Amino acid sequence: MSLEKELDSVESILHKLPEKELRQVWRILYGDGVKDLEVSEKCLKLVSRYKLELVKCKFNNTPEQLRPPRLVRVALFQQKLPVPLTFPIYKVKTEMYTLAMDAVKVAAKGGAKIFCLQQAWNMPYAFCSGEKMPWSEYAEKAEDGSTTRILQSLALENNMVIISTILERDEVFEDRIWNTAVVIDNHGIVLGKQRRNHIPCLENSNEPTYYCEGNLGHPVFETEFGKIGINICYERHYPLSWFGLALNGAEIVFNPCGAIGEETELLWSVEARNAAIENGVYVCTVNRIGMEIYDHEYEDEQGNLIHHKDSGLFFGSSYVAAPDGTRSPGLSRTKNGLLIAEFDLNLCRQVKDSRGLGITRKLPKYRDILLKLTNNEFKPQVIKKHCQCTST
Amino acid sequence: MSLEKELDSVESILHKLPEKELRQVWRILYGDGVKDLEVSEKCLKLVSRYKLELVKCKFNNTPEQLRPPRLVRVALFQQKLPVPLTFPIYKVKTEMYTLAMDAVKVAAKGGAKIFCLQQAWNMPYAFCSGEKMPWSEYAEKAEDGSTTRILQSLALENNMVIISTILERDEVFEDRIWNTAVVIDNHGIVLGKQRRNHIPCLENSNEPTYYCEGNLGHPVFETEFGKIGINICYERHYPLSWFGLALNGAEIVFNPCGAIGEETELLWSVEARNAAIENGVYVCTVNRIGMEIYDHEYEDEQGNLIHHKDSGLFFGSSYVAAPDGTRSPGLSRTKNGLLIAEFDLNLCRQVKDSRGLGITRKLPKYRDILLKLTNNEFKPQVIKKHCQCTST
Repeated sequence: MSLEKELDSVESILHKLPEKELRQVWRILYGDGVKDLEVSEKCLKLVSRYKLELVKCKFNNTPEQLRPPRLVRVALFQQKLPVPLTFPIYKVKTEMYTLAMDAVKVAAKGGAKIFCLQQAWNMPYAFCSGEKMPWSEYAEKAEDGSTTRILQSLALENNMVIISTILERDEVFEDRIWNTAVVIDNHGIVLGKQRRNHIPCLENSNEPTYYCEGNLGHPVFETEFGKIGINICYERHYPLSWFGLALNGAEIVFNPCGAIGEETELLWSVEARNAAIENGVYVCTVNRIGMEIYDHEYEDEQGNLIHHKDSGLFFGSSYVAAPDGTRSPGLSRTKNGLLIAEFDLNLCRQVKDSRGLGITRKLPKYRDILLKLTNNEFKPQVIKKHCQCTST
Repeated sequence: MSLEKELDSVESILHKLPEKELRQVWRILYGDGVKDLEVSEKCLKLVSRYKLELVKCKFNNTPEQLRPPRLVRVALFQQKLPVPLTFPIYKVKTEMYTLAMDAVKVAAKGGAKIFCLQQAWNMPYAFCSGEKMPWSEYAEKAEDGSTTRILQSLALENNMVIISTILERDEVFEDRIWNTAVVIDNHGIVLGKQRRNHIPCLENSNEPTYYCEGNLGHPVFETEFGKIGINICYERHYPLSWFGLALNGAEIVFNPCGAIGEETELLWSVEARNAAIENGVYVCTVNRIGMEIYDHEYEDEQGNLIHHKDSGLFFGSSYVAAPDGTRSPGLSRTKNGLLIAEFDLNLCRQVKDSRGLGITRKLPKYRDILLKLTNNEFKPQVIKKHCQCTST
């Protein structure tokens, strides 16, 4: 499969429609509420210097009488591994740092205050390879590993919150590895971290053999620019995981991903957006891009092929969805790209109010179901025909 | 607003794209797994006689070694009120019966075994009008009202399960009204009913003033053609409502709706499909169509306008979504239409297995959150900066 033949994006095709038809389809597929966002000349110059794709947009909502708008600009960055997987670990990391540092500069000039990187952003996404080495060596300390230290400087320098999802090595506790989002605030301080709770049990993904199941709950980080939660990659399949973050007060949920394959791509535009709608939050979902090419196939001891030389295509398409169901255009499926979106956090409460989400959730009903289920007392409520014999 | 100017469907516009581009976009938006379904000549003749739109399709999945495929054809019917709202109640019902009876005949010739009507299908959708009369008079007994009796004959005659969502009058218990889906099996027997649990709290919807909150849990009906659950209209916004039905073993969840307005239409293609994906079930979502025109505006005692003369456009667009994320094309936004879809119920378990949905749900975590929340012991897990003073 060659990247040249890959579709750039659904949006690029839709734009080939006549203006009137495009408008009609766009309203139903994306919503009317998203307009172009103006950014500085300096930002645009840097975009061109670093050869980034830039998507920029501004979400709409109604002003309130008592609360002033709480506008925030977020930036999502999707980046390709620019060097072969065989390069030394420090070299791969350094190259990924460089790309991210450039993107942070662009985002800062574009006015972004929260910057989110893709999952395991400073390494190849090797959790599906089956091989432990050298990939486990990418794990590093969350609070003061080299990646966090570099981002702390960047965050402070650019007055920006940065969300950095890495493989975390817990040197204190059994040398365990976790899949961890580190939140660095705009003063360069590590505000805290979230460890992924839900780990895929997929054919040949092998992820549960690399890192532990999260033990930090569903924390929400109160930053100067809004309350944020992080739902990592596969956790987008779990309505209750999004809900846990929303209950803790998240206004924006970031969803850093490494998503691949046609089956998954089919779900991509549905799940994160649905989570925004059902929970009255903004969702920012960031995917990796590109194909990661190993220098060898990998077989298990019985000679079964565990991984091919190529990873398949990480399909990018990062986007932002608002609680009212509108969404931004996506970044491309193939290119390094930065999405800068501005929105008003007040819309979260507006949507909760207008749809009465909290009033009609009927949580006690579901508490009782979950109680029974987890106590092995659950009996499915099934209605069958009372009496077969009378039926004909 | 004139119906003539209304867009027929998103799909009708996408089909204007060149073949290659259409294919690329379709794969990402709808999935590759849905093909055309062959139906009998007799079916097609009836379609043409009754001037119905027909969408027909067949979902794909992999055969298993031990279980034979469990193919089922379902039919969704969206129908416009063919007479003015001022007509006598019996007349409105009779006209709606005629349309539905024709559609059942077509569906039977098309091989459908489960037939689902839209919400409150035999009446105008007057729950947003604010006026109690004459609309409350449409309520009738679930088990042996005239609507159920007519459908029982149809079900028996056509060897078909019919799902009929009506306003139910409980003559035994306080003359209460409920929003109820009656399930009639293929032998013409009322298998049971589901009463809507979640009722919208929307500006001017007034629905909670018409009927009571459901008290029947999340029953699943074991029919000869599969285990089915019903999530009524607004319940599509509640992930736990879908989940409750899936836990009880539903393989197909029907979602009869009366959905209106641009804001809602934006969510339409997202929510039911997401529910199919997250729960490993097929979802069949059926919407009303057309504009329902009152003969007067309606004001409250203070002179505030409660309803306009027209209801706004019920936007149709009924569709079927499969657990793997593929979906059918939608019926049109404006026309009486029948969707016949064939699929293999085995796909539900296949998706649960391949994505490990049950393994990774981590329900005890969420049980504990709901327990605290419903006991007023919930404290949001919020992480703030430890010390503002060290930050600059």
